[in-house]
Amino acid sequence: MTRSRRVPAQDAMFLWGETPETMFHVASLMPFTPPAGAGPSYLRDLTAHLREAPVEAPWNLKLSHPQLLMHPLQSWVQDEGFDIDYHVRRSALASPGDERELGVLVSRLHSHQIDFSRPPWEMHIIEGLEGGRFAIYTKVHHALVDGFTGVKLQGRMLSKDPEKRDMPFFFSLPPTKRPRHQREALSLRDRLSAPVTGVAKGVGAVVGMGNDVTRAVVKLQTDRLKDPAVVDSFSAPHTILNGRTGRNRRFATQQYDMERLRALSRQSGGTVNDVVMAICGGGLRAYLTELDALPTKPLIAFMPVSLRGADDEGGGNKVGATLATMGTDHAEPIARLRAVIESTEKAKASMSGMSQLAALAWSGYMLAPQGPQVLSAMAGVRNPFPVAFNVCLSNVPGPREVLYLNGSRLEAIYPMSIPIHGMALNITLESYADTLNFGFIGDRDSVPHLQKLAVHTGEALAELEAAYAARSKPAKRTTAKRTTAKKATKKTTTPKRAT
Amino acid sequence: MTRSRRVPAQDAMFLWGETPETMFHVASLMPFTPPAGAGPSYLRDLTAHLREAPVEAPWNLKLSHPQLLMHPLQSWVQDEGFDIDYHVRRSALASPGDERELGVLVSRLHSHQIDFSRPPWEMHIIEGLEGGRFAIYTKVHHALVDGFTGVKLQGRMLSKDPEKRDMPFFFSLPPTKRPRHQREALSLRDRLSAPVTGVAKGVGAVVGMGNDVTRAVVKLQTDRLKDPAVVDSFSAPHTILNGRTGRNRRFATQQYDMERLRALSRQSGGTVNDVVMAICGGGLRAYLTELDALPTKPLIAFMPVSLRGADDEGGGNKVGATLATMGTDHAEPIARLRAVIESTEKAKASMSGMSQLAALAWSGYMLAPQGPQVLSAMAGVRNPFPVAFNVCLSNVPGPREVLYLNGSRLEAIYPMSIPIHGMALNITLESYADTLNFGFIGDRDSVPHLQKLAVHTGEALAELEAAYAARSKPAKRTTAKRTTAKKATKKTTTPKRAT
Repeated sequence: MTRSRRVPAQDAMFLWGETPETMFHVASLMPFTPPAGAGPSYLRDLTAHLREAPVEAPWNLKLSHPQLLMHPLQSWVQDEGFDIDYHVRRSALASPGDERELGVLVSRLHSHQIDFSRPPWEMHIIEGLEGGRFAIYTKVHHALVDGFTGVKLQGRMLSKDPEKRDMPFFFSLPPTKRPRHQREALSLRDRLSAPVTGVAKGVGAVVGMGNDVTRAVVKLQTDRLKDPAVVDSFSAPHTILNGRTGRNRRFATQQYDMERLRALSRQSGGTVNDVVMAICGGGLRAYLTELDALPTKPLIAFMPVSLRGADDEGGGNKVGATLATMGTDHAEPIARLRAVIESTEKAKASMSGMSQLAALAWSGYMLAPQGPQVLSAMAGVRNPFPVAFNVCLSNVPGPREVLYLNGSRLEAIYPMSIPIHGMALNITLESYADTLNFGFIGDRDSVPHLQKLAVHTGEALAELEAAYAARSKPAKRTTAKRTTAKKATKKTTTPKRAT
Repeated sequence: MTRSRRVPAQDAMFLWGETPETMFHVASLMPFTPPAGAGPSYLRDLTAHLREAPVEAPWNLKLSHPQLLMHPLQSWVQDEGFDIDYHVRRSALASPGDERELGVLVSRLHSHQIDFSRPPWEMHIIEGLEGGRFAIYTKVHHALVDGFTGVKLQGRMLSKDPEKRDMPFFFSLPPTKRPRHQREALSLRDRLSAPVTGVAKGVGAVVGMGNDVTRAVVKLQTDRLKDPAVVDSFSAPHTILNGRTGRNRRFATQQYDMERLRALSRQSGGTVNDVVMAICGGGLRAYLTELDALPTKPLIAFMPVSLRGADDEGGGNKVGATLATMGTDHAEPIARLRAVIESTEKAKASMSGMSQLAALAWSGYMLAPQGPQVLSAMAGVRNPFPVAFNVCLSNVPGPREVLYLNGSRLEAIYPMSIPIHGMALNITLESYADTLNFGFIGDRDSVPHLQKLAVHTGEALAELEAAYAARSKPAKRTTAKRTTAKKATKKTTTPKRAT
């Protein structure tokens, strides 16, 4: 590897905005069941093994100017004094080691800022979960790798074979090199983009990229006059989720069988993501109602969209974004899901057929008001302008088969993303085997009782199932017809989503 | 209590200098043995009890301007949304729960910056120590209370009676009010002192206070020409302990029977503090020799000296400082101790008879070079000027009797102080019952293998004992004579030391 490599602006954005209140690290939480017959030293042996493993780039790279994150010559340089004991850590849960205690510990770990004088990642092996289980929490700064890449790399240290031992750890595996033209593609834009506060302003720097965008903007502005389902960048209401964040986080999880979501996708004609949006919308509606903070207008979700080709193993960040309703203005579950489907299809239609760069530029146009949203939230004043969105919701495709780490069965993969000023709640999902795993991460102060939101989301799922079950009896035929019609529409747009 | 109170400059100094690398919080680590028959829920019940206890000032006070620590109108205001779950936390040790694992966990807890948007303190109840024991780690920002006050307050939640239950917790006990004249005494100086980086520059702002100081300075400058034992502010060598600190800390402990130190005090004619200086000097000599980093000139210790009256229960900070040799240039233990005794007696003699304010001013003169020391360490360059001192060594008087918290026996009290740029190692001691408890806290990068320093200090103690034992046989009489002579000298100066 090279000894020094400039941090591309697309990645450096995550350094420019970094403060103790807006920390741009992402993480994953993976609970495991050890193999039958694992002795009391199983985890200690695993940790010792981890600490002896070689460390490959980018995991041995640190910033050249950790004291000034906005340094214009910021580069990745090899950490000559790499200290594995710092990066690979042991922790334990207080008794009784249940999900609540795991949530408490992981919330704390996620609340601590990365030390930028070292390679910006940490791996915590957590013992003391009920039933002799353990968990691994891995935290990486978004400037080093994006969530999409992280998932791909993490998957490569796991095996489908429960008997397999001595797999290399993720930090012993470099990402497959990206083709040179891909690495260079963003460099002109990188140099043009000014220092920014968050992801969206960086994306916003590319506005005015070409004809695709102009066409899409004109289409948006004419469509929204005749169709209220078109979400533009002035549609979101003010909510408690859009204030200033503090230094601390809350984390909650939910795991659902993928088949439940797929069944609802078939019944409704929407995508699995549409179903997810609708049940998160239902959960948020119940949660905000309890806090007496539900706005009349529906909440708008920000959905990152991956702009990578299918063969790209990643490293660095290449993400656009769009906006859609969460249907929180609908009390009835099916009506809520329908509103979501209509909204996401229109959002995706406006991006389909665009080039990667044009799609990025389009994302920038949509999110332009997010600048004042972040700035006013930082200042702690009510934003006089409309907010661009209320919740960040993204979906990371995960491994399709049951996987094992040194014989320990992986039970779930919960992604943990980034709340920042003006967007205090982030819901990130990851698929794994036959499950969909939800990681709810929020600012501790803005989002009280986050666990309740997770529970309400589960209830919204059950309500949606019940509503379709009740409907299927009197009018089975009609439903089947609608499903087919929607599926045909869906084919035109298939952007992949990533953190 | 009042709703808003300006933070006095003497306390605000600890906010002005605060960064993620120079964190001005102090802490204590207290291991406990639970009472016989304590069930598995003993600690959880204790935590629940803690979380229901009322919170008194200053423990419910937060800063009025947490986003700008140097704000000129910084005040303490009541935290209306006080969240006890944030401040009182449960943690657990990874197996096997030995002293090493305790050290690792506490080092991490001490490496995390305080959240200034809340009352700046945390209490961690740590379970999983070997033998069913537990520990309490309490962390308080130095701007809220100094170490001396903290110890007094903490002592009041403990009882001499092992049967006693339901004692109030420290945060339910306000400090006894200081007499008004004492609270006002520093106000003029407070207004004069400019924003500073550390404790010493704040103290330095008072230079030129009066005749006492002028006299002492003249005496120092004439004495040092004729006597090499006089330590002035240009005596310290450059060492690895005087570089830039990072964000992380290492912590190690030692507990010695007080009687061992008292015996050496009697044998040598020095104070217990002199013996402590000499064994820390011996430990440092061995430690630095192993790292091939022992300077020819002896290391100089910075010793904070409490300037409170005996009846003052504290709150806020009132601390001066002086300098003395640690005798690291002497390989022979008794010669090392003698060098220390000579040096500390001269240091204290120069402060005796001074008023409180003059003593503060004198401290400022002695530590004037500490400004460039800190600044050059921050810049990461070698300080072209002499450093003022190498190690911060302080002694907090603790409880004299064995104490209990809700029936659990307190085993030790280890103080944890503040490494900052230019002074990466701090050794703070606290007496408890028949023991002296050493807390070694260092910057993780500057002070590798800190545990070894702690072990070497224990070895230096044993060597000193062996040296006196060997000497007492041939020449018992001479030693006894010297002891008496020294004791007479000692009486003239008795400043108390505090963190």
